[in-house]
Amino acid sequence: MYTIQPFGSILDPYKVVFFDAFGVLKSYNGLIPGIIETFEFLEATGREYYIVTNDASRSPMQLAEAYHKLGLAAIDHERVISSGMLAKEYLDLKVNDGIVAYLGTEDSAHYIERSGLQALPVSAIDDTNIHQVNAVVLLDDEGFDWFSDINRTVNILRQRTIPAIVANTDSIYPVSGSNRVSIAIGGSATMIESRVGKRFIRFGKPDSQMFMFAFDQIRARKSISKKEILMVGDTLHTDIIGGNKFGIDTVLVLSGNTLPDDASTRISSTGIVPTYVCEQAVI
Amino acid sequence: MYTIQPFGSILDPYKVVFFDAFGVLKSYNGLIPGIIETFEFLEATGREYYIVTNDASRSPMQLAEAYHKLGLAAIDHERVISSGMLAKEYLDLKVNDGIVAYLGTEDSAHYIERSGLQALPVSAIDDTNIHQVNAVVLLDDEGFDWFSDINRTVNILRQRTIPAIVANTDSIYPVSGSNRVSIAIGGSATMIESRVGKRFIRFGKPDSQMFMFAFDQIRARKSISKKEILMVGDTLHTDIIGGNKFGIDTVLVLSGNTLPDDASTRISSTGIVPTYVCEQAVI
Amino acid sequence: MYTIQPFGSILDPYKVVFFDAFGVLKSYNGLIPGIIETFEFLEATGREYYIVTNDASRSPMQLAEAYHKLGLAAIDHERVISSGMLAKEYLDLKVNDGIVAYLGTEDSAHYIERSGLQALPVSAIDDTNIHQVNAVVLLDDEGFDWFSDINRTVNILRQRTIPAIVANTDSIYPVSGSNRVSIAIGGSATMIESRVGKRFIRFGKPDSQMFMFAFDQIRARKSISKKEILMVGDTLHTDIIGGNKFGIDTVLVLSGNTLPDDASTRISSTGIVPTYVCEQAVI
Amino acid sequence: MYTIQPFGSILDPYKVVFFDAFGVLKSYNGLIPGIIETFEFLEATGREYYIVTNDASRSPMQLAEAYHKLGLAAIDHERVISSGMLAKEYLDLKVNDGIVAYLGTEDSAHYIERSGLQALPVSAIDDTNIHQVNAVVLLDDEGFDWFSDINRTVNILRQRTIPAIVANTDSIYPVSGSNRVSIAIGGSATMIESRVGKRFIRFGKPDSQMFMFAFDQIRARKSISKKEILMVGDTLHTDIIGGNKFGIDTVLVLSGNTLPDDASTRISSTGIVPTYVCEQAVI
Repeated sequence: MYTIQPFGSILDPYKVVFFDAFGVLKSYNGLIPGIIETFEFLEATGREYYIVTNDASRSPMQLAEAYHKLGLAAIDHERVISSGMLAKEYLDLKVNDGIVAYLGTEDSAHYIERSGLQALPVSAIDDTNIHQVNAVVLLDDEGFDWFSDINRTVNILRQRTIPAIVANTDSIYPVSGSNRVSIAIGGSATMIESRVGKRFIRFGKPDSQMFMFAFDQIRARKSISKKEILMVGDTLHTDIIGGNKFGIDTVLVLSGNTLPDDASTRISSTGIVPTYVCEQAVI
Repeated sequence: MYTIQPFGSILDPYKVVFFDAFGVLKSYNGLIPGIIETFEFLEATGREYYIVTNDASRSPMQLAEAYHKLGLAAIDHERVISSGMLAKEYLDLKVNDGIVAYLGTEDSAHYIERSGLQALPVSAIDDTNIHQVNAVVLLDDEGFDWFSDINRTVNILRQRTIPAIVANTDSIYPVSGSNRVSIAIGGSATMIESRVGKRFIRFGKPDSQMFMFAFDQIRARKSISKKEILMVGDTLHTDIIGGNKFGIDTVLVLSGNTLPDDASTRISSTGIVPTYVCEQAVI
Repeated sequence: MYTIQPFGSILDPYKVVFFDAFGVLKSYNGLIPGIIETFEFLEATGREYYIVTNDASRSPMQLAEAYHKLGLAAIDHERVISSGMLAKEYLDLKVNDGIVAYLGTEDSAHYIERSGLQALPVSAIDDTNIHQVNAVVLLDDEGFDWFSDINRTVNILRQRTIPAIVANTDSIYPVSGSNRVSIAIGGSATMIESRVGKRFIRFGKPDSQMFMFAFDQIRARKSISKKEILMVGDTLHTDIIGGNKFGIDTVLVLSGNTLPDDASTRISSTGIVPTYVCEQAVI
Repeated sequence: MYTIQPFGSILDPYKVVFFDAFGVLKSYNGLIPGIIETFEFLEATGREYYIVTNDASRSPMQLAEAYHKLGLAAIDHERVISSGMLAKEYLDLKVNDGIVAYLGTEDSAHYIERSGLQALPVSAIDDTNIHQVNAVVLLDDEGFDWFSDINRTVNILRQRTIPAIVANTDSIYPVSGSNRVSIAIGGSATMIESRVGKRFIRFGKPDSQMFMFAFDQIRARKSISKKEILMVGDTLHTDIIGGNKFGIDTVLVLSGNTLPDDASTRISSTGIVPTYVCEQAVI
């Protein structure tokens, strides 16, 4: 149904490459072997790149540092576009004051604090301060107690008519161990949303705002057409359909969420068709 | 849109009354005041009653004892029909051997053990015994760690092609504090089901098997028509639509999940119409 | 993952066999070759059988006659349990008077008329009689204009707080031509339900009321255990999960909705596991 | 819960106004009285405006002409941003050749033809040309036979692994008669999508690409901040949540989908909160 092509052979028409992070650049075992050479090749051939990630657990600076520690020095924090940045932009534009309650790690709260608002974990909200809460942001699946804090979130949103923002739309992600997964905050968000009956605001792929954010940064510096951009991802439901919808070419790599044995079945059953399929994003 | 009628005034045509438990007989504050007199009246007038509950956290014996301790001596454990009993019947008929992994309290595991099968909490499943797991049963929202054990459940169901049984279909339930709720196991079940992509087997109202189970017990002793049975419940989406669909008359009481201020809006927005509406199940 | 077994080899433990109709007894090409011999074998060995079908387009009498014309004389109308019969029972018990508006063929309206109520097609409802409409029943995907009558149904249910009954839960069914399908009334019902925001009442497999209806008829004549009943069907989401949940053994046949090439993938992806898999219900 | 404010009193901080069309500028009775004066005021005060509409039934030129005929001469076709334009951009960027099959009127096919591709109604697809179909586009709820052409669409998408594009995400729209509605193509799209099991690509509000398209046109001419743009709409689930998510201020008008009696309940039950509420978009 599709031909697996070498990653190096498809890059020719593109001036900019967008990469998903987890499953493309690294796995729970560390960097994908050969990925350092990929970035060397991009630099050598004058191609730009951006990391477009649904990871809102840390700031772009911290995300870039994590790659540096793994040996991938090429990742500049200015090239990292995270879904948390869109949540921050929303808070900047639409929430003027008060408390923003969050589910996630302390690191993830960075996005709220950068917006000049008071960030409090959901666990710190009680009868004395609930009336000051003007938004709830779901940032990351760690850093809180699922039972009590998910229930607190439900009750905050039953009492207050305020926006609930989901900064990571992923529903599951792979963890160490053969084919094991963990439920991401996007999965819990859907459960809370259906229990509360309210409509949440989601940032992150496949939403086109993620791609537009990166596209705008490039356009600020030079003229570029969507035909010259390639999105590289391991997940059909976020990276590939999001890139397709935004109007750019897409490549599915088989080093993460989509296993080589399943790719063909998943493409035909979902109808989400990448422009190319490659084993991995390695030259 | 509806008239609130005194509970005593509507009982005349009925020989058997089915009661939901939580929100009808008791709340988090204890027994609903006056409920003891309701059962005295039923006894005095020769009416039979059954407690038809989605509570699979404890055995019928333990559920009945809890009412006795609260002062409601009338509740006989043989009159308690719990959704856990249907899960047990399923295991009896369809699972012959191996381990049944469960989410819930130790008390809730009673239903599995009574079926003669080995019950293990999901937290006790690892690579050494996962291949013996022949069913997963979701019994109660307590007794386990939400983050790690929900993730374990997802991974068991990704590895094993086995039935997943949900013994409590409730998605939220009221807890102490004004209008506060907690997510029930039925709510988590929906999240796990959508992440895993498999179809779960649900027991509990509104499913008609709950009502049929009670109906069969009565028919074993005497002749009865569905026209002679009344279902009393506080929740439109379980008690009322379930009773309606089974073909019996229904009364919505406003002492639990459905608040007096919301009843009219909820009936017209859901289209779930009870035969009667009463303040509470009190004569 | 499973072994295909000859249908004759699995019948030994069972005294009663439930058959789905379409895809098991017949296809759009007529009777499944060899099915007449299957019923001769059941008669010869003293086994009872029931046709348990989500077809509410015609009365049991008409459904049986259709089999007689095809040459399958064994099908007695008293052995046909249709989802329309459950809709009729609901109307008998829960709707006392007024108009019942329906989507379906004139033949399908039989179920409403047998209940002694006035049946009018949705197309006959206007401002002069809408206030007398006390129920809407969705019976069949033919006999009405999809655009105008589905829209009329939406508007009736927006104006009236009345029950909406779906007498056929199938969402698609196979039609002539290689692997072609048609949307069944259950599929349209879901669209109408989500537009209207109300909760519909669904009769038909996988709901256990279908199985209970047949089970009750047998028990009225003789003692039977669920262990002695086998459900034969071509669809995992109705026949097999419904039979499993009711607690009886199930056999998936590959002569209808589930194609031989897909069976293994579908069983593992849905987690709906039949007790047996056979090519067809032919000895 | 909210104060209804005069539309004229809220415009001060905004340099650009986005208007939804149906329910804001016109209803099935013609122009909203006073709307001509609104546009005169905008012109007089040097404010720009765009019509941002999920209507893909006609070209921007035809949509503008329809307003001219009603007497609203101010609407320039260059100020009309329709969801059909995004579908066209997708086809330009992602579909190179072959047939694009569509559901909709002949007028709506304009968007496909402008992209240089061969547009054929779904009814014209058969065994001789199905293998050339490289995309399916759902444009409008009129111009085809619902039963046969929706079924044809299902079967095309079962046979071909190609993108399905929905150019109008509305699920219902108001029609003449008190509080009557009609199912829009977005509603049928959801039914087809769930039957086929594939993931469709949706253009139209609330998706941010609609807002970005207009935003980009303004930015090409002058510098503008999101804080200076106001979105005016009658529908919480498209106009208001879409505008909010894009980061601009929003005003809900009560002249269309959201009735004055329901506004408060709907805002609190959905959690979608507009910046302002006005009776209508009239000075």
